Amino acid sequence: MHSANYSKVFILVDENTNKHCLPQFSAQLDKVFEFEVIEIESGEAYKNIDTCTQVWEALSELNADRRSLMINLGGGVITDLGGFVASTFKRGIDFINVPTSLLAMVDASIGGKTGVDLDNLKNQIGVIQEPVMVLVITPFLRTLEERQWLSGYAEMLKHGLIDNEPHWAALRQVMPFDDIDDLIRDSIEIKQGVVSKDPTEKGLRKVLNFGHTLGHAIESHFLQKDKYHPLLHGEAIIAGMILESYLSYKLTGLSTDQLDDIKNTLSKRFQKVEFTDDDIEQILKLLIFDKKNTHGNINFVLLQRIGEAVIDNRVPQSLFNEAFAYYKE
Amino acid sequence: MHSANYSKVFILVDENTNKHCLPQFSAQLDKVFEFEVIEIESGEAYKNIDTCTQVWEALSELNADRRSLMINLGGGVITDLGGFVASTFKRGIDFINVPTSLLAMVDASIGGKTGVDLDNLKNQIGVIQEPVMVLVITPFLRTLEERQWLSGYAEMLKHGLIDNEPHWAALRQVMPFDDIDDLIRDSIEIKQGVVSKDPTEKGLRKVLNFGHTLGHAIESHFLQKDKYHPLLHGEAIIAGMILESYLSYKLTGLSTDQLDDIKNTLSKRFQKVEFTDDDIEQILKLLIFDKKNTHGNINFVLLQRIGEAVIDNRVPQSLFNEAFAYYKE
Repeated sequence: MHSANYSKVFILVDENTNKHCLPQFSAQLDKVFEFEVIEIESGEAYKNIDTCTQVWEALSELNADRRSLMINLGGGVITDLGGFVASTFKRGIDFINVPTSLLAMVDASIGGKTGVDLDNLKNQIGVIQEPVMVLVITPFLRTLEERQWLSGYAEMLKHGLIDNEPHWAALRQVMPFDDIDDLIRDSIEIKQGVVSKDPTEKGLRKVLNFGHTLGHAIESHFLQKDKYHPLLHGEAIIAGMILESYLSYKLTGLSTDQLDDIKNTLSKRFQKVEFTDDDIEQILKLLIFDKKNTHGNINFVLLQRIGEAVIDNRVPQSLFNEAFAYYKE
Repeated sequence: MHSANYSKVFILVDENTNKHCLPQFSAQLDKVFEFEVIEIESGEAYKNIDTCTQVWEALSELNADRRSLMINLGGGVITDLGGFVASTFKRGIDFINVPTSLLAMVDASIGGKTGVDLDNLKNQIGVIQEPVMVLVITPFLRTLEERQWLSGYAEMLKHGLIDNEPHWAALRQVMPFDDIDDLIRDSIEIKQGVVSKDPTEKGLRKVLNFGHTLGHAIESHFLQKDKYHPLLHGEAIIAGMILESYLSYKLTGLSTDQLDDIKNTLSKRFQKVEFTDDDIEQILKLLIFDKKNTHGNINFVLLQRIGEAVIDNRVPQSLFNEAFAYYKE
């Protein structure tokens, strides 16, 4: 990246990354080029079209043109929303992701999926567009709370479960805030390897949805129920992975030992979500809105064993309540 | 197109195409597949993100999924907005353009530019995405008013001016509502030929902006001044072409004869826009917001002669008032 290629540079932050990450980041930038900062409010509740409009208007007012560059400095909300805003401003300007959360480093900032929520439907609006660069600065991880750290750790565990048993085995040993720079690199490479074989999610890439079919519905439901204190993404996905591991045990031959290993490992570090019967009913309703459902069928990624996933499994509705019962045990 | 490839079909219309074009169009469709109709309000004033949100929400409520198809049945507002909505819904579903205005047939529906306005800035938000098909049904032209017919005719004249002198010469002979099916085909081919060599507008494609740099500013200005009775796109572009032909005469060697030919031909069929001094001042301010302006410079496409354009010309500000004075003569 040479500053001379870009007419202007804009850095998108929220109030947290503005305070905790921008000073360190901009100290290095100042020497290279000038920039403008655009701040949005933090949190999934603001990942919507209204916030996009604020950023589009800010870019217009600051005279951004088609040769401007946007740098998304933040967690997944910033990289998802900022990538979408950049990809649609004047039909697309370049953007760079600088993820500041573990979740964004190993997941959101990789693979080109950008977008925002529509009402309570997650990532309903978006495009697939790769950033020109992803810059991973692991010292930012020290600014996280443990709950956020665990949220990213959950996605790393998923990468092990779907594609790489040794990655899973290594991650089982890790405690929050351990130095895991090497494992972060491995996790990014696993995801990048899957994405590069199927960028537009026609087939293989779907394995990355393990835990997410139910996980997204769970996340949407709790966002709807209490939009200011929702579950974190990783917490919803952990519940989704336990539930979908149970479905794997019933349908695709995951062994009892591995099912128990998954549940025990995940339960050890993540607090259980309390589901009422009403919660479960609402979550199952939300399932049909999930964007991966075509023709009204709900397709699940399931495990054959740890490190090996299979896509496009149809699940009988009767198993859902059984899976929630296993989760609650 | 086989209906079996798509899970659902949605037809986007406005109140005019719903009434005048959908009955004829759907009579043929009914035999092939079922569809849902989504109606938005007609007019450039509704080509904005709020309308997109209405359509996104309608798609969600009607359970559109990633294998749904959208058919945009209408003029340029419908094909621009519908293309953007489809390209961003669940990160992109297929869409077909069925242009019903002459302008949309020869211009908006061709070339993959989709998008909407932001406040008063035209096409500020959008993506480049080709439709899977463009279906040109010329009997729809009978539903147009003369003013709308001329608006499309203006773009056809532009295709002649920038790339094809015989096309210009043939169009000079034409009167409103003549049978011009062959010329429509030629005009589409000229535009498609330019676009296919440079889909993302890095260079050559810019020739299509002839008349549009000033024309868009004129259109934005009059939309702002009276959002319910704005100039039509083609009317603004005709003024822009006369103004930019004058700049061509001053800067790139367009002959006096050809300059006068252009002004006379265009003036014969198009009513003159009345510009006050205040209008001109506002229009020149809007120029710097035009999305093609990079690094604060304003780049113009100018003519060397009829049928041959040259891109990236910088124009001294002093010439603008001179050009408006020539226009008013």
